[in-house]
Amino acid sequence: MAQTVAFIGLGNMGGPMAGNLVKAGYKVNAFDLAEAAKKHAVELGCSISATPAEAVQGADVIVTMLPSGPIVESVMIDKDALLDKIAKGTLVIDCSTVGPENSRRVAAEAVKRGIRFVDAPVSGGTAGAAAGTLAFMCGGPAEDFAAAKVVLEKMGSNIFHAGDYGAGSVAKICNNMLLAIHMIGTAEALQLGINNGLDPKVLSGIMLKSSGANWSLEKYNPVPGVQENVPSSKNYAGGFMVKLMQKDLGLALTAARLSNSTILFGALASNLYGVHAKSKEGTVDLDFSSILKLYEQH
Amino acid sequence: MAQTVAFIGLGNMGGPMAGNLVKAGYKVNAFDLAEAAKKHAVELGCSISATPAEAVQGADVIVTMLPSGPIVESVMIDKDALLDKIAKGTLVIDCSTVGPENSRRVAAEAVKRGIRFVDAPVSGGTAGAAAGTLAFMCGGPAEDFAAAKVVLEKMGSNIFHAGDYGAGSVAKICNNMLLAIHMIGTAEALQLGINNGLDPKVLSGIMLKSSGANWSLEKYNPVPGVQENVPSSKNYAGGFMVKLMQKDLGLALTAARLSNSTILFGALASNLYGVHAKSKEGTVDLDFSSILKLYEQH
Amino acid sequence: MAQTVAFIGLGNMGGPMAGNLVKAGYKVNAFDLAEAAKKHAVELGCSISATPAEAVQGADVIVTMLPSGPIVESVMIDKDALLDKIAKGTLVIDCSTVGPENSRRVAAEAVKRGIRFVDAPVSGGTAGAAAGTLAFMCGGPAEDFAAAKVVLEKMGSNIFHAGDYGAGSVAKICNNMLLAIHMIGTAEALQLGINNGLDPKVLSGIMLKSSGANWSLEKYNPVPGVQENVPSSKNYAGGFMVKLMQKDLGLALTAARLSNSTILFGALASNLYGVHAKSKEGTVDLDFSSILKLYEQH
Amino acid sequence: MAQTVAFIGLGNMGGPMAGNLVKAGYKVNAFDLAEAAKKHAVELGCSISATPAEAVQGADVIVTMLPSGPIVESVMIDKDALLDKIAKGTLVIDCSTVGPENSRRVAAEAVKRGIRFVDAPVSGGTAGAAAGTLAFMCGGPAEDFAAAKVVLEKMGSNIFHAGDYGAGSVAKICNNMLLAIHMIGTAEALQLGINNGLDPKVLSGIMLKSSGANWSLEKYNPVPGVQENVPSSKNYAGGFMVKLMQKDLGLALTAARLSNSTILFGALASNLYGVHAKSKEGTVDLDFSSILKLYEQH
Repeated sequence: MAQTVAFIGLGNMGGPMAGNLVKAGYKVNAFDLAEAAKKHAVELGCSISATPAEAVQGADVIVTMLPSGPIVESVMIDKDALLDKIAKGTLVIDCSTVGPENSRRVAAEAVKRGIRFVDAPVSGGTAGAAAGTLAFMCGGPAEDFAAAKVVLEKMGSNIFHAGDYGAGSVAKICNNMLLAIHMIGTAEALQLGINNGLDPKVLSGIMLKSSGANWSLEKYNPVPGVQENVPSSKNYAGGFMVKLMQKDLGLALTAARLSNSTILFGALASNLYGVHAKSKEGTVDLDFSSILKLYEQH
Repeated sequence: MAQTVAFIGLGNMGGPMAGNLVKAGYKVNAFDLAEAAKKHAVELGCSISATPAEAVQGADVIVTMLPSGPIVESVMIDKDALLDKIAKGTLVIDCSTVGPENSRRVAAEAVKRGIRFVDAPVSGGTAGAAAGTLAFMCGGPAEDFAAAKVVLEKMGSNIFHAGDYGAGSVAKICNNMLLAIHMIGTAEALQLGINNGLDPKVLSGIMLKSSGANWSLEKYNPVPGVQENVPSSKNYAGGFMVKLMQKDLGLALTAARLSNSTILFGALASNLYGVHAKSKEGTVDLDFSSILKLYEQH
Repeated sequence: MAQTVAFIGLGNMGGPMAGNLVKAGYKVNAFDLAEAAKKHAVELGCSISATPAEAVQGADVIVTMLPSGPIVESVMIDKDALLDKIAKGTLVIDCSTVGPENSRRVAAEAVKRGIRFVDAPVSGGTAGAAAGTLAFMCGGPAEDFAAAKVVLEKMGSNIFHAGDYGAGSVAKICNNMLLAIHMIGTAEALQLGINNGLDPKVLSGIMLKSSGANWSLEKYNPVPGVQENVPSSKNYAGGFMVKLMQKDLGLALTAARLSNSTILFGALASNLYGVHAKSKEGTVDLDFSSILKLYEQH
Repeated sequence: MAQTVAFIGLGNMGGPMAGNLVKAGYKVNAFDLAEAAKKHAVELGCSISATPAEAVQGADVIVTMLPSGPIVESVMIDKDALLDKIAKGTLVIDCSTVGPENSRRVAAEAVKRGIRFVDAPVSGGTAGAAAGTLAFMCGGPAEDFAAAKVVLEKMGSNIFHAGDYGAGSVAKICNNMLLAIHMIGTAEALQLGINNGLDPKVLSGIMLKSSGANWSLEKYNPVPGVQENVPSSKNYAGGFMVKLMQKDLGLALTAARLSNSTILFGALASNLYGVHAKSKEGTVDLDFSSILKLYEQH
């Protein structure tokens, strides 16, 4: 078993993920730019390194959880150049949500240096990060995936192998684009029912047992009061924020352009979330099921 | 138990539905305009009536399965005026897929005459009709729904009460609009994955266990070869034809207009199926999962 | 020259139109349900009839200016049955904005009775109605169009012959759908420019001399302050109200469905105006160029 | 007057543009990678340089006409590093169609070195390039624009100053996005009219004098036979190819993402051209007015 993990990026997701590695018996050398994040990581049992370069010294596995693809490229290649400071044979697992083009570039640079790489973006939110029930969608060679899986299982419950380098990022982008689309569709269908006198709880129950069934309807009903403990029943607080969905849809648009793919509904979803985000201050921080507000009668 | 059922409309759906009522012990007086349909109904054990008016004489329950709302209105009110020939207290169950405005008008005219009415559009296709595993979404008063349920259970396995008159039609329209939307989203997501080198079977498996999960992905994968025995693996033959999805999306557009509802994705789905239908002769007869063709590389 | 005109419908448009006929020397027998409208028509020199039937007695030409197609059908056929009270050979000009299916039905019933009919929906707004500079798009036989033109020229400056019965209604619907589309496109392009630091006045000037040129950009710039005396520079007051554009786009959706036409952008425009209308109370009464608000940064 | 111009990029547009500079009395040192392009440039009176670096030696003005933003950045900065080989005070005019982010980066690097820069993307097509009637949309300081204008006037008839660095690229992107939108709207409106029995020539004439008027309808009618000498009347040959419109709409999507702008119709236009491009082999080489084919009945 890998003994020492370097963990770069200790935000709302990265912090508890690092904590779960400590709990599982790993020695975790952690780094973040923010003081509060570092302090919290110490409480969770991590050792704090002064620089990313220091963190990766002697690490068997390096996990990165950073805000964007350009930042990952900057840390690994262009600015901090961590790949030049990591020992041959070390396994780098990037859990950041990035474009496949970012993953592929970092992978190519890692491979050149004899470093192993797996892109492993995550879903499940901060609750899943704390509970250790995240899902990871991974890209990379089968043997590197197998090695990464041992570590990722300490932080999550579903570890998928999507394909070669970048495939994890692609899978996450595809999944979240589809999620946005069926959330919007669910909002439209439920509001159409409401406007025609139906009880959204009854209609939801019928569609869940019929061909309209989908994850948004089952786990994340956008109409307040239909389900307990979902964001819509808490004024759309918590959950997966509009701005994060916008980020993922932006990655889908870029991935589509680079692969000459048509994503008519995906592009429309991206722009409809744009309309929503601009509709009222604070909307970007609401859960993405708040898209229902665009459809409600006033 | 109701003893005699009048069954109006013996097409691909109505024929086997009437047959299942015969099997369940009902006397079925059936009517259709087409000779072939009548002949087939006789083989299934129905008695054939010369006119709709003759069929409804002495019937305890009347089931209609007709091609459109205007035809239902024409048969029940405007032309054949069946409602004037039906005994007070009789239960009329309209299984046709129609607009809620059609259901509500027929219901209102029925109620005026002391006739009971339930709108009960169906899903499950010709296979479900033959197997008696259809789903019915019903609108009408609770006691009339209860009475209708006894009959509908002989033809289907899921009998839902959606609400008052017209609510069955609304539920069906909402469900099928949502189905169209997540089918299109599923096609876009899978093709985006394929264009980025992912195996659609692997990507489908991942998304099914993630937040992208939906009925289209689970039961009706649009990429040929991912699932067996689905239309996409049989050159998009069989299944739920493009032209039928177009009809249902047209009903959604009308219902949205009449209720001042916004269905941005629903309207786009309707028009994208329009583009698809015009793309090549014969497309309207393919299964609706063939929408994937619009996205494929050539 | 026709001497007596019956004018049914004396609203914001119909009133001043009737007034211009009086000025041109016609005797105008006018009817409306609203007292205020009748009073105003008297001031403009019209005689008021007690009923539509009384108004059409002895009239050479009948002009209708009513709120919707179903109302036109109700007045002419289903309820007031004016067509049964009009003398053979009389010319009926319907200036209401209606669906072509409404125009065609009224035309067919008129023709059966030997009555001449022209559908002649109008554009130009209340200012054009007062100034007598309206445009009329007409459908009907050439000779009936020629007869109608003599009358319409008293109220407008552009009298177009679009084709046979219903063609006037079709032309108006097509034109206004295209107007909605290039208004939305203009709003998007200008806001994209603004967000990238361009002066909207400069950008508008460039696009007006380039291939982006269109009527919205030339006459009705949606960005406040670019042009004087347009609604956007008056808090979007006046002009062509959102609710009227919504009505016309609804007619386009129905016309598309009845003719198996695809109007992907038209349907999206209809639904985007739906989102806009629901965004804030009072929006439906703003000018349609206020769609820019959906795109602005906050 | 500037005496010597270095011209980099002698394709279908650049070649004739360079030729017009020769005609106007400039000495033109030209460079291209393709032999045929160089040969043709010689016929037009240009001197051919062996490398871009050689071409810019001693030039007063440098004009670039390259296929994409990344190529411009590669030639000017990252690979050929021309900016390091150009004398201080020289004026660089980039006529390539690129993203504003590309223009701004090249401008910033030029300014650092005391080199003057104007982004000046062009519209008007190969016919305009040959005739010297192109339009240029320019970004940069007023005095640099003034200097560039002297040169650009030899190649075009409309030279616009859109604003600061990058503003030329922004203006071009906004204009072409708006062009795509009103072309699609025009196609939809005309086909809706045709499907309702109207003559597209008559309908076009009416809308041109009404609020539907736009450049596509006036200069580039998408229905074959309505206008002579437009691509639609020549099997959509010539004109502005689908693949070029796709490129420009891709630039709009990127510009929108970078400026947090919503372009709902622009994104839909991009994806609808994507559907069109995939519909049949060879479509990408047709004129962009061929989008009508998606709407036609078959």
